[in-house]
Amino acid sequence: MGVKNVGIRDVAKLAGVSVTTVSHVLNDTPQMRVAPETRARVREAAETLGYGPNRAARALRTNRSGLIGLLSEEIATTPHAGRIILGAQDAAREHDLTLVIINAERGPHDAAHREEVQTLIDRQVEAVLYATMYHRRVSLPPNLQGVPAVLIDSTDRAGIVPAVVPDEVGGAVAAVTHLVEAGHRRIAFLNNDDDVPATHERLVGFRQVLGEHGIPIDESLIVQSPSETLPGYALAREVLARHDRPTALFCYNDRMAMGAYRAAAELGLDIPNDLSIVGFDNQELIAANLFPGLTTVALPHYEMGAWAVETLVHLLRGEAEYKLLADKPTRLDCPLVVRGSVAAPRDR
Amino acid sequence: MGVKNVGIRDVAKLAGVSVTTVSHVLNDTPQMRVAPETRARVREAAETLGYGPNRAARALRTNRSGLIGLLSEEIATTPHAGRIILGAQDAAREHDLTLVIINAERGPHDAAHREEVQTLIDRQVEAVLYATMYHRRVSLPPNLQGVPAVLIDSTDRAGIVPAVVPDEVGGAVAAVTHLVEAGHRRIAFLNNDDDVPATHERLVGFRQVLGEHGIPIDESLIVQSPSETLPGYALAREVLARHDRPTALFCYNDRMAMGAYRAAAELGLDIPNDLSIVGFDNQELIAANLFPGLTTVALPHYEMGAWAVETLVHLLRGEAEYKLLADKPTRLDCPLVVRGSVAAPRDR
Repeated sequence: MGVKNVGIRDVAKLAGVSVTTVSHVLNDTPQMRVAPETRARVREAAETLGYGPNRAARALRTNRSGLIGLLSEEIATTPHAGRIILGAQDAAREHDLTLVIINAERGPHDAAHREEVQTLIDRQVEAVLYATMYHRRVSLPPNLQGVPAVLIDSTDRAGIVPAVVPDEVGGAVAAVTHLVEAGHRRIAFLNNDDDVPATHERLVGFRQVLGEHGIPIDESLIVQSPSETLPGYALAREVLARHDRPTALFCYNDRMAMGAYRAAAELGLDIPNDLSIVGFDNQELIAANLFPGLTTVALPHYEMGAWAVETLVHLLRGEAEYKLLADKPTRLDCPLVVRGSVAAPRDR
Repeated sequence: MGVKNVGIRDVAKLAGVSVTTVSHVLNDTPQMRVAPETRARVREAAETLGYGPNRAARALRTNRSGLIGLLSEEIATTPHAGRIILGAQDAAREHDLTLVIINAERGPHDAAHREEVQTLIDRQVEAVLYATMYHRRVSLPPNLQGVPAVLIDSTDRAGIVPAVVPDEVGGAVAAVTHLVEAGHRRIAFLNNDDDVPATHERLVGFRQVLGEHGIPIDESLIVQSPSETLPGYALAREVLARHDRPTALFCYNDRMAMGAYRAAAELGLDIPNDLSIVGFDNQELIAANLFPGLTTVALPHYEMGAWAVETLVHLLRGEAEYKLLADKPTRLDCPLVVRGSVAAPRDR
C-alpha cells in the first residue's frame, strides 16, 4: 500500500521510446534489433525508476505481486462477464497490474464463493474484484475481509465493501422517456418477478417518467413473470389481447422482448408501426438480430470493470477511504441503444 | 521444464486434510482455527514436498512462475471465449497453475497480436495459449516462438505450433445425419461464404452424409451468403420460394437459422412440421430462445481450452514432443444438441 507504482509505461515515457521497445530491451528479446544508444537509455530509465522486468524478483523485493484477482460468475454463459473482464483489464494495464481471473459457479445460496476467494489470496493477489452476473445483494465470505476488495454488480449486505452497480432507475427512465417522447401513453411494463434490485428499481423509473409526464398509471398494465423468452411471450399475448391494448411495451430484458416479438408476429402486429418495444440489457446476440433491431438499454459492464480497478488502485495507494466508498454503491449510467423497434403510435 | 510440479493438492493429500486447510495453515489466515497437530502435519507435508505458499519466492527459486498466459480474442462479445477460459481454468487448477488472460482485438489482418504476446511474456508466463474466436489459419507473431504455446481454434500456417480445432466435418455429419434419419431427402445447406475452414469442411460433411445414404445432391440447394441473421433470412426466403422446396435446412450457424425461422414464419411454415432446421454453434441465447428450440451442433470450446492446458503441461514436463503434436491439429467432437426444430417431413 502506498508503494510507488512504477510501470513499463513510465520507463517508456522517461526513455522516450515505445512500451514494446522497453520490453524488448529489458527482456533481451532475441531477433529484436534496438540501437545500442536506445538500449542504454532504456536501461538507465529503468534503473532511475527502479523498474525491473522480472516481476517475481520485484514482488519479493517490494512485497507486491502486481496481481489483482477477479472472481467472476458465469464467465462461460454470457458476454456480460467478458465485458467486465475487458473493462477491468484495460484499466489494470494502465496501472501495470495483471488480472488473475477465476470463475465461480452460482450456488444455491447467495454464493459465498469462499473457496474461490481463497484461491486468489493463495495466488498472492494484492486485491480482489468480486463480480456477480446480475445486480443483487450478497453476503460476502469472511476471507474477503483480509484483502482490499471491490464488488461489481452487487452490493454488500454488511455495507463494508465498496460496490459499483448499474443505475437501474436511470436506465428505465431513459427507456420509458424514449417511448413517451415518441408519443406513447398506453405503455405496459413486462417486469421480472424476482425480488432483485432491478425489478424494483426499473419499476420506480417506469412510474417516475409517467408521473412526470402527467400520464395516469394503469396498474393492470404492470405485469410480472420470470424474465425468460417464453414467459415474456405469454405476458405479451395477454396484454396485447386486451380491447384497450397498449401501443408500447417496456420489457424487463431483451429475452422477454424476444418473446414479445413473437407474440406481435402471431397477432399480425407490425413492429414498430403497430407496437413499439424497448428492452433492457443490450444482449447483442438478441437485440441486433431481431427484425427490426431491438431498441434497448445497455448495462455498463465494461465501465463497472474499469471503475472497480481504478478504485482498487486508489485504495492500494491509500488515496481513497474504504469506509467512505463502502457507504453507498456507485451507480453507473445505463444508456439507451436505439435500433428500430420504436415509432409513433398509429392512433396518436 | 521437467521440474516436479508440486501443488497444494499434493500437500493436502499427504497431510490428509482439505486444500482449504492447507491454505489457511501455510498463509496463517487470521480467524481460521486449525488444531495445532493439524498445522504441524500440514507444515511437515509441505516441507517434505518442497511446497511453499509464497509463489513469488517459489518462482524465483525454481524459475517457474506457475503462470500460463491465455491470449483470447473477443472476450467481450461472445460466450465462446468464456467457455474456452473456463475449460482452460479448470484444467489449470488441476495442475496448480494460474491463468493470466489477455484480450486481443481482431485486427484487419490475420492479427499477429505480437504486442499482447509480449505482455504475457513480460508477465513471466511459462507458456501461452493463443485462442481465436473462430476456426481459421493464422500467421503467428515471432515472439510466440520463444515460449511453449498451443493454439485454440486455429492452426499455424507455418505448422510449428500444436493446435486444437473443432471437428467441423464430424459436426456437419451429425447434423445432416439427424435430418436424414428423420426422413428428409431434400435438404438445403445455407452455407457461409467466407473462405474459412468451417465453410469447406461443413460442406464436406453435408455431401458425405447424402452420398452415404444414396441421396442425389442437388447443387442448387447449396447456397451461400455472409453468416448473419439477415442474409440467412434472405437465403431461406429464396430456397423456400421454390416449387420443389426443401423439407429441411441445414444452416451454417445459429444466426442464419434465426433468419430462417423468420422466413418460415412469414411463409406460414410451421417448424418442425412443415420445415425442419438444424443450426451450428449452439449459441444458447439464440438456440434456446427460439420457438421451437433450435436443434444445433455444439462447438467444443470448453474442451479445447482444457485440452490445450493439458497439452501445455505435458510439453512443460517434457512428456510430449512439440514437433509431433504440431504435425497436425487435434480435432475435437462437435456433438449434436437436440431441441425441437426437427420432425419427419409431412410428405414422406
